[in-house]
Amino acid sequence: MSTLPKLSDRHVDARNYPPGVSFMDGQYLPIHEAKLSVLDYGFLHSDATYDVVHVWKGAFFRLDDHLDRFFRGMGELHMSIPYDRAQVAEILHNCVALSGLENAYVEFICTRGTSPDFSRDPRDAENRFIAFAIPFGSVANKQQLEKGLHLAVTDILRIPALSVDPTVKNYHWLDMIKALYVAYDLGADTAILVDGSGDISEGPGFNVFVIKDGAVSTPGASVLLGVTRQTVFEICKEMRLECQVRAISRSDLLNADEVFITSTAGGVMPVSKVDGRSIGSGAIGTQSKRIMDRYWQLHDAPRHRTPVSYA
Amino acid sequence: MSTLPKLSDRHVDARNYPPGVSFMDGQYLPIHEAKLSVLDYGFLHSDATYDVVHVWKGAFFRLDDHLDRFFRGMGELHMSIPYDRAQVAEILHNCVALSGLENAYVEFICTRGTSPDFSRDPRDAENRFIAFAIPFGSVANKQQLEKGLHLAVTDILRIPALSVDPTVKNYHWLDMIKALYVAYDLGADTAILVDGSGDISEGPGFNVFVIKDGAVSTPGASVLLGVTRQTVFEICKEMRLECQVRAISRSDLLNADEVFITSTAGGVMPVSKVDGRSIGSGAIGTQSKRIMDRYWQLHDAPRHRTPVSYA
Repeated sequence: MSTLPKLSDRHVDARNYPPGVSFMDGQYLPIHEAKLSVLDYGFLHSDATYDVVHVWKGAFFRLDDHLDRFFRGMGELHMSIPYDRAQVAEILHNCVALSGLENAYVEFICTRGTSPDFSRDPRDAENRFIAFAIPFGSVANKQQLEKGLHLAVTDILRIPALSVDPTVKNYHWLDMIKALYVAYDLGADTAILVDGSGDISEGPGFNVFVIKDGAVSTPGASVLLGVTRQTVFEICKEMRLECQVRAISRSDLLNADEVFITSTAGGVMPVSKVDGRSIGSGAIGTQSKRIMDRYWQLHDAPRHRTPVSYA
Repeated sequence: MSTLPKLSDRHVDARNYPPGVSFMDGQYLPIHEAKLSVLDYGFLHSDATYDVVHVWKGAFFRLDDHLDRFFRGMGELHMSIPYDRAQVAEILHNCVALSGLENAYVEFICTRGTSPDFSRDPRDAENRFIAFAIPFGSVANKQQLEKGLHLAVTDILRIPALSVDPTVKNYHWLDMIKALYVAYDLGADTAILVDGSGDISEGPGFNVFVIKDGAVSTPGASVLLGVTRQTVFEICKEMRLECQVRAISRSDLLNADEVFITSTAGGVMPVSKVDGRSIGSGAIGTQSKRIMDRYWQLHDAPRHRTPVSYA
């Protein structure tokens, strides 16, 4: 038998990470030092909820809506943290300010945590709060934002609400990941999953909208109630565009005049192709462009802005 | 505006963890030093597969079967690691030997990992292998093993195979966690989830078996193909007990002569109550007891044992 290897004192991690700042266990840390125990049930059972808010030109956008959803999600999962809403807001603020990022992707997470004896009873675990700010990221890259994304509609079922409540933002993404690989094989940029009726559900990190004969619509079942989705509802109201939450079939999507997707990671993003077929003229639709522009304009509205005080 | 807090150099973690040894990034570490970046998609998207093998009286039990399942799962998820089967076996061996544990719970994991620019494309990530050995744990505690567990059959749908392949061992447990809280509210010890037909599926970390009129059966759809489940099939064959994989209804479970559950974490574990009703006589069933005893006897069979060489 060979000699056993030596036990190291400390983990050395040679990987590269993006710039950014994290908060955990009362400490603000460079993102490359923000590490979670491999025994945390947020990892081992994906027993966690989270939210992502973005900072644009030095201000949070719709921070209150993200805080609402996060605290509601923790309640649904029987989790609690030693910080109230104002304290969480302050932590997020500090992460961004310390990172110096003017445009940031800010994620905040509550995990089930760990228990000293690795108990399998979730009630025995001490929940853990983590937050981090890294550079703003998008579902679509620059070229895709300019030319429109190519979506593939897969036959993969989005995890049903009878299993996992989609309105509690969660990390159950293996269905999404599988759909992405299917989409890549078909030459598409990203994927759409279906619901139990075979209708359009959502994609990896985004909601989907179609426009037909001037009316906007988006699915209501088995989807995350996205904050950007909500913003689009408000924009439609303001622009007096009809906007409906309804079942959308694959053929509704293929035959739409315009299609776009929404996410905190990227905002309103145009779609130019579905399953290899051009949508409308194949260029970014007129109404989609108006909604996109208005979405970014709204970032200057004081009611949605929470400015960051950089040191 | 207040002054910003100070950025710490290193994360200080005051929590207590069980004893144990982990391997990651080429290093063997005390378990309390084994930490995963908060940006790892194994955490942020639960984009990971894993397996758990146990060590009993200084030897791995059915190590080959767990390695088979793990490597198959990685293939299904388009993941790869720089270690082959023999190297993974050696790493697991070293974790156990360095921990000194005679009875251990040994988990090995492949996560999607991270990419330096936080790309959302899973193909850009560098996959990460993690292993750890901690003290052997069980779904059932000592008292439950002696008196039998109390199961609650919930109406929560186990995540369907059309969403996430249950034969690729994964961390999507929010349906299980929700079911556990339902079970606790009903005074039960643990929970059963149902499949799309309303039949019995599985519970948090275990398969379910019923015995009726001398015949053993267990569900085949929407369940993990457990190694302990497989061992029970072999035991039944050896004992000339009829054993079927078939749909099992809630009423089949309630009217069974005996019920037991199986998991690497605990082996074969008796059930004495379902939904508050006693199963059979309410004591541990005769056949269940024989199967349990044989399960532990089999740990001495050379064909299933891979001994650990402690330093």
